[in-house]
Amino acid sequence: MPPIISIVGKSDSGKTTLLEKLIAEVKQRGCRVGTVKHDTHGFDIDHEGKDSWRHKKAGAATVVISSPTKAAIVKDTDQDTPLVHLAATHFDDVDIIFTEGFKREAKLKVEVFRKKAHHDLLCEDNDDLVALMTDQPFDLKAPCFDINDVKGLADLLENRFLKVEQAPSVSLILNGTYAPLKPFIQEMFINSITGMVAALKGGKGARSIQISLDLPRKSEKKS
Amino acid sequence: MPPIISIVGKSDSGKTTLLEKLIAEVKQRGCRVGTVKHDTHGFDIDHEGKDSWRHKKAGAATVVISSPTKAAIVKDTDQDTPLVHLAATHFDDVDIIFTEGFKREAKLKVEVFRKKAHHDLLCEDNDDLVALMTDQPFDLKAPCFDINDVKGLADLLENRFLKVEQAPSVSLILNGTYAPLKPFIQEMFINSITGMVAALKGGKGARSIQISLDLPRKSEKKS
Repeated sequence: MPPIISIVGKSDSGKTTLLEKLIAEVKQRGCRVGTVKHDTHGFDIDHEGKDSWRHKKAGAATVVISSPTKAAIVKDTDQDTPLVHLAATHFDDVDIIFTEGFKREAKLKVEVFRKKAHHDLLCEDNDDLVALMTDQPFDLKAPCFDINDVKGLADLLENRFLKVEQAPSVSLILNGTYAPLKPFIQEMFINSITGMVAALKGGKGARSIQISLDLPRKSEKKS
Repeated sequence: MPPIISIVGKSDSGKTTLLEKLIAEVKQRGCRVGTVKHDTHGFDIDHEGKDSWRHKKAGAATVVISSPTKAAIVKDTDQDTPLVHLAATHFDDVDIIFTEGFKREAKLKVEVFRKKAHHDLLCEDNDDLVALMTDQPFDLKAPCFDINDVKGLADLLENRFLKVEQAPSVSLILNGTYAPLKPFIQEMFINSITGMVAALKGGKGARSIQISLDLPRKSEKKS
């Protein structure tokens, strides 16, 4: 799973503006970026009257639109999908994930501090605070950058998360729910599955493997 | 993988209108429906100025918006994603998938025939033609329904695809590409993985299992 960094700060601190510049800077360095935006109130997407919009409106639980350059998926959920579940499902092809609005769920954070919007820092000054972007000096253990120094922040992220060898990782979703695995269980899955896959065409040296199993069951329809 | 049925017909034959009614009817019978719309020309989704729109515009390869009731994913692709790949990735929680616009890729088809739009049938009259919805009589091996008889079509789909026990299935995506598996290899994957998962909490009797592996590699960034 790619590293997940959450951009946190008060609502008018400029999180989205910083993130726009950071995405462009990291992309320009040759990395693929994914983002996750959390929306507490629900949201509108797609355009009224389009076929995909009509499918969803008619009651489809999941709607996919696929084109040669882009795919979009809109799906109903029973509850907030955990960030690790989203990361495991949709981001196998990116190098780093930035989020907005997952203050509690994301471990690693970059805080944006703007003195006109804040009185105090939102984050604790510990190892989980990757950096502070600020328009006012702070004396912290965490690295501080001028609020506009996106290149400085990108250098830090590159050295800490993107130039390093990634450890192999496995994520498991059971009946639609992310299931955390202890390290030795992870190792068992990695060894067993890479062993099976290595025997297949194109399987030797595979860098990402995704397996979905549907197991026998009666349909759950009510009638 | 849920059964995939493609609704085919000339562009003004009323495919989307039929599909809207069919989605509502099948949902009302207690089934979860997924749909896939193919768009040859690319498409717009999301709304200008929203945070997620700004992330994508800034260069994010994949953008996710997550809320308590809905999730949306917009991602760049290098080429058309194969239908089986879409089905394996996004539809683990639906009972049936309907598509529009995958005439060649989808095996099972429902044709919509409207005499003012057609001269001849688009589909061959063979086992892959699940049904013909028509406003003009045809003498076919395949079941024919009046173009408005959505309940009749839903009955057929229910008996043929939804009331039957689904066979266990496995799908594998290697380095982002769907990899077809021979039946005995499928069986090996199913037995090995259900065996490993059965030992985990909540793993016994799991109905859907999704596993993602990221294997060690240097980041591919250019600099």
